Amino acid sequence: MRVQPGRSAGRFAEATDGLLERLNNSTAVDLRLWPHDLVGSRVHARMLRAVGLLSADDLAAIERGLEAVEAEFAAGSFALQPADEDVHMAVERRLTELIGEPARRLHTGRSRNDQVMVDSLLWLRDDLDRTVQDLAHLAGLLLERAEHALEVPMPLYTHYQPAQVGSVGFWLVSHAAAACRQLRRATDLAARLDECPLGAGAVGGGDLPLDRALTAHQLGFARPSPNALYATASRSDLLDAVALFASIGVDLSRLGEELVLFTSPAYGFLRLPDRLCTGSSLLPHKRNPDGAELLRSGGKLAAGEFAALASVTSGLLGGYSKDLQHDKALLFAASDRTHDLIALAALHVAGVELVPDRLAEACAPALAALYLADRLVLSGMSFREAHHVVGQAARVADETGTTVQGALAGVVPPALVTLAAELATARTPDLLAGLRTAGSASPESCRQQIVELRSRIALA
Amino acid sequence: MRVQPGRSAGRFAEATDGLLERLNNSTAVDLRLWPHDLVGSRVHARMLRAVGLLSADDLAAIERGLEAVEAEFAAGSFALQPADEDVHMAVERRLTELIGEPARRLHTGRSRNDQVMVDSLLWLRDDLDRTVQDLAHLAGLLLERAEHALEVPMPLYTHYQPAQVGSVGFWLVSHAAAACRQLRRATDLAARLDECPLGAGAVGGGDLPLDRALTAHQLGFARPSPNALYATASRSDLLDAVALFASIGVDLSRLGEELVLFTSPAYGFLRLPDRLCTGSSLLPHKRNPDGAELLRSGGKLAAGEFAALASVTSGLLGGYSKDLQHDKALLFAASDRTHDLIALAALHVAGVELVPDRLAEACAPALAALYLADRLVLSGMSFREAHHVVGQAARVADETGTTVQGALAGVVPPALVTLAAELATARTPDLLAGLRTAGSASPESCRQQIVELRSRIALA
Amino acid sequence: MRVQPGRSAGRFAEATDGLLERLNNSTAVDLRLWPHDLVGSRVHARMLRAVGLLSADDLAAIERGLEAVEAEFAAGSFALQPADEDVHMAVERRLTELIGEPARRLHTGRSRNDQVMVDSLLWLRDDLDRTVQDLAHLAGLLLERAEHALEVPMPLYTHYQPAQVGSVGFWLVSHAAAACRQLRRATDLAARLDECPLGAGAVGGGDLPLDRALTAHQLGFARPSPNALYATASRSDLLDAVALFASIGVDLSRLGEELVLFTSPAYGFLRLPDRLCTGSSLLPHKRNPDGAELLRSGGKLAAGEFAALASVTSGLLGGYSKDLQHDKALLFAASDRTHDLIALAALHVAGVELVPDRLAEACAPALAALYLADRLVLSGMSFREAHHVVGQAARVADETGTTVQGALAGVVPPALVTLAAELATARTPDLLAGLRTAGSASPESCRQQIVELRSRIALA
Amino acid sequence: MRVQPGRSAGRFAEATDGLLERLNNSTAVDLRLWPHDLVGSRVHARMLRAVGLLSADDLAAIERGLEAVEAEFAAGSFALQPADEDVHMAVERRLTELIGEPARRLHTGRSRNDQVMVDSLLWLRDDLDRTVQDLAHLAGLLLERAEHALEVPMPLYTHYQPAQVGSVGFWLVSHAAAACRQLRRATDLAARLDECPLGAGAVGGGDLPLDRALTAHQLGFARPSPNALYATASRSDLLDAVALFASIGVDLSRLGEELVLFTSPAYGFLRLPDRLCTGSSLLPHKRNPDGAELLRSGGKLAAGEFAALASVTSGLLGGYSKDLQHDKALLFAASDRTHDLIALAALHVAGVELVPDRLAEACAPALAALYLADRLVLSGMSFREAHHVVGQAARVADETGTTVQGALAGVVPPALVTLAAELATARTPDLLAGLRTAGSASPESCRQQIVELRSRIALA
Repeated sequence: MRVQPGRSAGRFAEATDGLLERLNNSTAVDLRLWPHDLVGSRVHARMLRAVGLLSADDLAAIERGLEAVEAEFAAGSFALQPADEDVHMAVERRLTELIGEPARRLHTGRSRNDQVMVDSLLWLRDDLDRTVQDLAHLAGLLLERAEHALEVPMPLYTHYQPAQVGSVGFWLVSHAAAACRQLRRATDLAARLDECPLGAGAVGGGDLPLDRALTAHQLGFARPSPNALYATASRSDLLDAVALFASIGVDLSRLGEELVLFTSPAYGFLRLPDRLCTGSSLLPHKRNPDGAELLRSGGKLAAGEFAALASVTSGLLGGYSKDLQHDKALLFAASDRTHDLIALAALHVAGVELVPDRLAEACAPALAALYLADRLVLSGMSFREAHHVVGQAARVADETGTTVQGALAGVVPPALVTLAAELATARTPDLLAGLRTAGSASPESCRQQIVELRSRIALA
Repeated sequence: MRVQPGRSAGRFAEATDGLLERLNNSTAVDLRLWPHDLVGSRVHARMLRAVGLLSADDLAAIERGLEAVEAEFAAGSFALQPADEDVHMAVERRLTELIGEPARRLHTGRSRNDQVMVDSLLWLRDDLDRTVQDLAHLAGLLLERAEHALEVPMPLYTHYQPAQVGSVGFWLVSHAAAACRQLRRATDLAARLDECPLGAGAVGGGDLPLDRALTAHQLGFARPSPNALYATASRSDLLDAVALFASIGVDLSRLGEELVLFTSPAYGFLRLPDRLCTGSSLLPHKRNPDGAELLRSGGKLAAGEFAALASVTSGLLGGYSKDLQHDKALLFAASDRTHDLIALAALHVAGVELVPDRLAEACAPALAALYLADRLVLSGMSFREAHHVVGQAARVADETGTTVQGALAGVVPPALVTLAAELATARTPDLLAGLRTAGSASPESCRQQIVELRSRIALA
Repeated sequence: MRVQPGRSAGRFAEATDGLLERLNNSTAVDLRLWPHDLVGSRVHARMLRAVGLLSADDLAAIERGLEAVEAEFAAGSFALQPADEDVHMAVERRLTELIGEPARRLHTGRSRNDQVMVDSLLWLRDDLDRTVQDLAHLAGLLLERAEHALEVPMPLYTHYQPAQVGSVGFWLVSHAAAACRQLRRATDLAARLDECPLGAGAVGGGDLPLDRALTAHQLGFARPSPNALYATASRSDLLDAVALFASIGVDLSRLGEELVLFTSPAYGFLRLPDRLCTGSSLLPHKRNPDGAELLRSGGKLAAGEFAALASVTSGLLGGYSKDLQHDKALLFAASDRTHDLIALAALHVAGVELVPDRLAEACAPALAALYLADRLVLSGMSFREAHHVVGQAARVADETGTTVQGALAGVVPPALVTLAAELATARTPDLLAGLRTAGSASPESCRQQIVELRSRIALA
Repeated sequence: MRVQPGRSAGRFAEATDGLLERLNNSTAVDLRLWPHDLVGSRVHARMLRAVGLLSADDLAAIERGLEAVEAEFAAGSFALQPADEDVHMAVERRLTELIGEPARRLHTGRSRNDQVMVDSLLWLRDDLDRTVQDLAHLAGLLLERAEHALEVPMPLYTHYQPAQVGSVGFWLVSHAAAACRQLRRATDLAARLDECPLGAGAVGGGDLPLDRALTAHQLGFARPSPNALYATASRSDLLDAVALFASIGVDLSRLGEELVLFTSPAYGFLRLPDRLCTGSSLLPHKRNPDGAELLRSGGKLAAGEFAALASVTSGLLGGYSKDLQHDKALLFAASDRTHDLIALAALHVAGVELVPDRLAEACAPALAALYLADRLVLSGMSFREAHHVVGQAARVADETGTTVQGALAGVVPPALVTLAAELATARTPDLLAGLRTAGSASPESCRQQIVELRSRIALA
């Protein structure tokens, strides 16, 4: 019978069926946890030594062995064996080959159930760091480009209809604001990962005098997790991470749609350089925005992973069940994709070129409507009346092919005809500069927004 | 043509189609926002007065009118009209009926796009408060019952197989730990709701000299949201809330499965009082745990709402689109259900009765395995060898119908036969009390866990 | 103790807790099943009579009673009682009030588990009929409008980039093809609903000599469901229906996006009449395509219901569990929305107006690329070379502001200069009429498509 | 500049960015389509020859080349190049290397948009065949084991509570019924794949005189797809397939839960042989049902893929967009997992051992309740009264520790005391054999069910 370190050879009379062994084997997914598995094992061994469950010699052998294993992983020379059912067993198997007996003492007071959770949390901590950096980089890039486009007018849309005049810079800042918000979520989540599961054992703790606080502190956690059953059975922190990735995905998906639309001939506001375009196998003239489309669509996928992870972790009895094994495949898929998508977004933000003529042209006269209504309000008219009057002007403008500004004089009460005539000269830069509320699209407000968001990035 | 306050009568030549009007109408969903809409309107009006856009008389009229509207809502006498397309329009329509002209000045500098977001965030802030209270109540109840069940043995399960000895108290504490973790998430999320969208306007801010910081502070936010486009278009805070509800649901779903199983004859650990049972229409003997089943299943539903909300908010251009209207139906469904499920969980935790005999009986001898292995480790054997030896004993015990303890002497090396004989007397209370790690199932550790979790609840 | 027909008063010593009773009560959702519950009960009673389990007098009383109940429902005068936990119990309770003793014999040989399934399948059969009709109506409308727009040119898009010349008619036919495909799915699904669960009892059949084949035939099924456990526990037919609704939703969501874009100023191909537009509370000039947006977004929601239904019906033991109760809320939500969305789509298809100038203008010269490449192929050039040559011409056209046709002569091999010069005169109608493959956008092909799809509608 | 066959070298002045190229590259996912891509290309080339667009020599060269490519794939020696962005381009690139010029004529009249759809449908047709076979094999195995277990009593559960007496055979038949239903769905879906997209071109058909009917027939389709836009843009058939896999997953997930529970000590009805068990790294006595857990959890995952696929294919304009590229990764993941899970289910069905003592023991007296009530009904009592009386007996039995049968005499009306006394002797085999309805758990009925289901398998 082939040795299977994951199960006691004493307990079983026949080997695991091949299909089950294959499906049960998670190394293809969890091998990436090796750095975290090694650091967890090192700290665990030191704690075992500190409480007298390991001799100094055994610890020395284990530390030497773990270094050798690390070197193999780092060099890409670590050789997986078919019977290595997960990264933890692979590491222990190799350690045993390298140092013999002392390796058989490493799993003292530890179960794979707490081990996999500590590995996962250590991995997630690193991954959230990377996420914060990625988001900060993207936000920084957005703000940098925004800074040079604060006076490039651009229609702002609601309901996919031009609503008012904004600027390319304001639009870019809105995506930086989104990235900064996600960055804050990532930071909050990382801060919550402050409880160390290692030492919780299989489900209910153990009989050995472990010092879990020592383990926790050496691994950078604030404290051991308070309840061994919850520590080994819950995947809610991982679900949080998938929710975060799904939320980032939603933001990027919107950026993707905007890039797809704004680079299409219908809008024509932006142009992708050739390096961000792909071609068509049949249609020779095509310059396709595949990257922007992947941003739009890729950002939708993590919601499916959220639904799947919630489903497999629901309705389960007690401590660890094999069902939970799916957590990592779902989490890693969402994470990998998110890092790629943020990088893809950054690539587009950096590379896309503005087409100022098309932008200016699209800031059509109707976009003055809010401006006109607000001017009427400042002259004392109630907002609802102003709204009605300007609405009429818009309809007249539509029907007669003139501008709202131009049509206004014909629909205002006599007392306001002079004001209306004055407003008829309102032009796009006036409209943009006339914005006065905090957070608005005016260049002045946008400059303040950039300062504010940069300070948030700096704090992250 | 019937008046439709949501659209400028000046702009349109015919009324909205009936089907579209029905589908576009969201009052059935958003009417619950009335308290938040009223407070938002009151603060907005005061701010308009502070910056000189409203006369003192108009403000007085508006405040009087809003009070009257509030009284109607509170009394249940507010009469919706068919043309009230959402709560915001219903309030403004009624206000106009009550006070006339000044009401037409209230919407100055405000769009439904920022208004609906501030209403939603105010609602969510309240709802998270309620969620925190609900969770604190549930956790408190769990700890209270746990306190009296720390020495009632209960098997702990991994893979749905008995793994080691724990206690009913430890199990209950694990659910309190889950509730405390969700409570922390809810608190983090509420703390992030510190930016006020009101005054962001339709999408890009406005031309009037609003004081958004004043509005923000009076509504209890730390500051205005920094970018008007992001403030009106993003639903990521609401998505966060749905993720939170889905995560709470996963925890409750697991409690539900446990209650269903533990109250079933196969386990028989718990008994539901008649008031928590339902019957069968055909099978007269049945006592069905419908409540526990609803906990298990209801907890799975919010993941579908998460997927739906992520999908509808993805891939959209720019500012507000009607697509976003679905946010509230999804959010409110998830929230309502979650409050019900937490209450249902509390009802079961408070009402369920223990069946100590069945619990004791289930703490079968095989549950001593970890204890035995750890004793061998303390005698100097390596963990892997101890694991192998006890595994053999378990197999012998299975095959011969004896206990693992009893079988141990036959499989240990000669030097350990005396120790093995001594261990053969290990009984359930020994096993439980022998647990020594922080977070373990021992009564002593559980008492510390209860203290720790109570301090977390007190802080919330 | 208040009487609760759903549970044996003999079995329980106290009433159900109020919260549990509220959550357990499904009448708000399942009351719409009353017509199916009544027909099922009538057929069940007749079968009981046929096998001698009911006297002729009792059957007569039951039939009279059911008619009276039906009349109450039809008149809207049926009075629900708080203790009516579902539609089945409400009907039986009322029947008992009306006819007394014989009503107590109606549930003989029947459980709510088989009853709710037969009601659900009867409802679904009706609902699929309605779905088929709705889809046929929509498809018919699409084809009718298409017929009059086969020669109105319109760009066809891939990657949101203009790809080749098509027509408004061809575009409309593509949506009719989608509707016809869904219609076929609906028909297939309805045909699979040919097994009658009634008489399967609670989970394993019963001891009474029921004639399930008689019941099945009288209710329009081909046969009784073969296995009582599967018949009462599976919800896979309902899941199929939700999948169908989600799939229809995807199609309509795409139509919604197209309507949103094509009616936006950026495209300007279509114009919504005022009755299909809504306005803005702040921006007086806006004409928002809320209906089209609701089509786009509403079509995404049923996927969440699919995920939720799959999740709650997964991982359950044996026969009916209360978890399954969620099936109807999810199914009905998906169905109701789908019927509304199909009607909304039809409303838009019927009402939208074409803007031929903008359409023609958008059929820009680059759209000749495929045509040019194919002409070069017909002259003997390999397709890849033609693709390369026309690609070059497109780039030159881009850089010099000319047309691809015009640029072609400059890049073809000398032997083809004459052909290129001839092709330089290709105009939009040539391109459209030049399409020759089956299923293509040429008017001739579209006419055949219309004939073909109409024959499919006629068969449905 | 490196050659990129997917885009016209003539069109672009710089190479695609590395990150975009990596994300755009789908060979890791779609390489498995090579057999379908080759057969599609062969048929396409023959059709081009038939309509005179290819010379006999060129066709001969292409056919020879495709055979060589096929041999390379079959031998595992096909060498992917970094610039091969998908399987289609890889095949064409290699073909060009092998045969030169004629290869450049193969893509005549074909786009990747129709090519990828025909490849996908050909693949799906094969995969549905395999699914049907897998399901037939599983159902056959279930029926075979069922046949030998028709008289092994087993409690049937509703609400996870024992409801009535059934048999292991009846339970197994219920899963065979589920598999047969899925088999029918798979067959229906396969039958709907009767329209061939090849020749639809990029989005609107082409200018060349292709014979799409010839292509369709040679590829085994009934006809060409009717509308080129719909044919290239819709993924609803693939969504159907994912829905099917999700539905199969729900069934298997339930089987998984049952195997987990029935092999747990709490139930103890079944025992897994060692080859279907895994062990614990910490707890030496554990025999974990990892395979059954993977069945339960794996079956939940495809619903996430359904939600993701619906989301990415929703809300898109017109023809092919890059967003659709995600279809195959989602479909293949769902398919691969489903095949594995069906095999895993078969492995467990074949290997699991019955524990008749525990099964018999669990068929506790209370399970006679339905039997008793039905006997009272046959004696003339109304069902509701019988239900009440037996409910009382069950309560008395609970309180006094006797059986329902035994308690019955104490609660029936005097006239029925004799009957009650007679019923007191009812034993499990009586209860089982006494079932009389079609589809019930009686051995006789189960034998008919087996015959019926076998005939369905034979037809598939």
